[in-house]
Amino acid sequence: MIFRQLFDRTSSTYTYLLAARKGGEALLIDPVVENTDQYIQLLEELDVKLVLAADTHIHADHVTAVGSLRNRTDCAAAMGEKAGVECANVSFREGDRLSVDDLHLDVLYTPGHTDDSYSFVLPDRVFTGDTLLIRGTGRTDFQNGDPAAQYDSLFGKLLRLPQETLVYPAHDYNGMTVSTIGEESRYNPRLQVESKQAYIDLMNGLVLDDPRLMDVAVPANRSCGLKHAA
Amino acid sequence: MIFRQLFDRTSSTYTYLLAARKGGEALLIDPVVENTDQYIQLLEELDVKLVLAADTHIHADHVTAVGSLRNRTDCAAAMGEKAGVECANVSFREGDRLSVDDLHLDVLYTPGHTDDSYSFVLPDRVFTGDTLLIRGTGRTDFQNGDPAAQYDSLFGKLLRLPQETLVYPAHDYNGMTVSTIGEESRYNPRLQVESKQAYIDLMNGLVLDDPRLMDVAVPANRSCGLKHAA
Repeated sequence: MIFRQLFDRTSSTYTYLLAARKGGEALLIDPVVENTDQYIQLLEELDVKLVLAADTHIHADHVTAVGSLRNRTDCAAAMGEKAGVECANVSFREGDRLSVDDLHLDVLYTPGHTDDSYSFVLPDRVFTGDTLLIRGTGRTDFQNGDPAAQYDSLFGKLLRLPQETLVYPAHDYNGMTVSTIGEESRYNPRLQVESKQAYIDLMNGLVLDDPRLMDVAVPANRSCGLKHAA
Repeated sequence: MIFRQLFDRTSSTYTYLLAARKGGEALLIDPVVENTDQYIQLLEELDVKLVLAADTHIHADHVTAVGSLRNRTDCAAAMGEKAGVECANVSFREGDRLSVDDLHLDVLYTPGHTDDSYSFVLPDRVFTGDTLLIRGTGRTDFQNGDPAAQYDSLFGKLLRLPQETLVYPAHDYNGMTVSTIGEESRYNPRLQVESKQAYIDLMNGLVLDDPRLMDVAVPANRSCGLKHAA
């Protein structure tokens, strides 16, 4: 497998490039529009063909490159069905599979950070978007965020994956690149709560500023990032 | 193998944590002093015991945590013999091995960025310090840097590793986390030169500011980072 984790320093976003093999098909998860040129160059250098660009959810902190990549390559834009956007070629939901050659990612619906949050599962790793971060979880105070739903996504779905599953989130702010489900179960401070209500109280008690780019990014991302420059 | 790549945002330094297994011994490569607490916490959470902390070279852009880690754990501080520092427990040179349990890193002497630059080789990956960066190479204009020596280190040693060898550098400034020897051979713009002299001319033609922390970091790192706060 070809696997690349790429970091956008401005928004602290991780983008993931996956392909089964050289010469084969590739998938980009959570690409950032400003880095479109970098992705295109890297795809060429790795000799892979982008066929899918997917967001785990409608981001509020950066503009997606899903649309710009579709315009500049032959890839399909994939967004979750709950995103309800018109700009995607493909809408996915829990139980679906995103595949490039014989690499198959199983889609989990993991709402909470937003109501259109999904995770993508490979046998040895999971791409958790903003649902599960390394030693943290995504905020639940906007975009139909819901701490009760996030608790269910975390404890009912993600933490039930095998303990050794690698966790690749959509962001990190502390220089961490990867974790495991076992580590997050034990050491993620937000997951040490004794009840669902305690988690809801914890999340509702957070006082956070809106993301700097929220008023730009959310509407832009509803067009797969294509309308932000208009 | 337990493997973690950690990013220090201030200096764009990558630090690597390696261990053969849970409950076993661990090695840290190029740790940054400000992140000492983070390393200690992560070592505990991963249930590994730090036995070695090693720098690929005397860094000019950040203060090493090799000394602070030795003070706070039972680890040995390892530095290259060419660093000529008194603060290390172990000095290594080409042909030596750094081992944690049954994980063995072969030491290559790869001068050029500095005259005390080393790389560490595992069967599937190489830690290249500032000798080989992703689509770049370390500057050669201070600390006894030498573009001719760097050419020999690159073309005579690192690029002779198997093409699929993963390249983990000490820094990246463009959001890349890993590359391969094959990719760098083909796409690293500094490695497309036609002769050693062309490489020397290319490197000597770079006009670069001194690193912001150079006057602090280099003397501090000659004491394994222990004297910078004094």
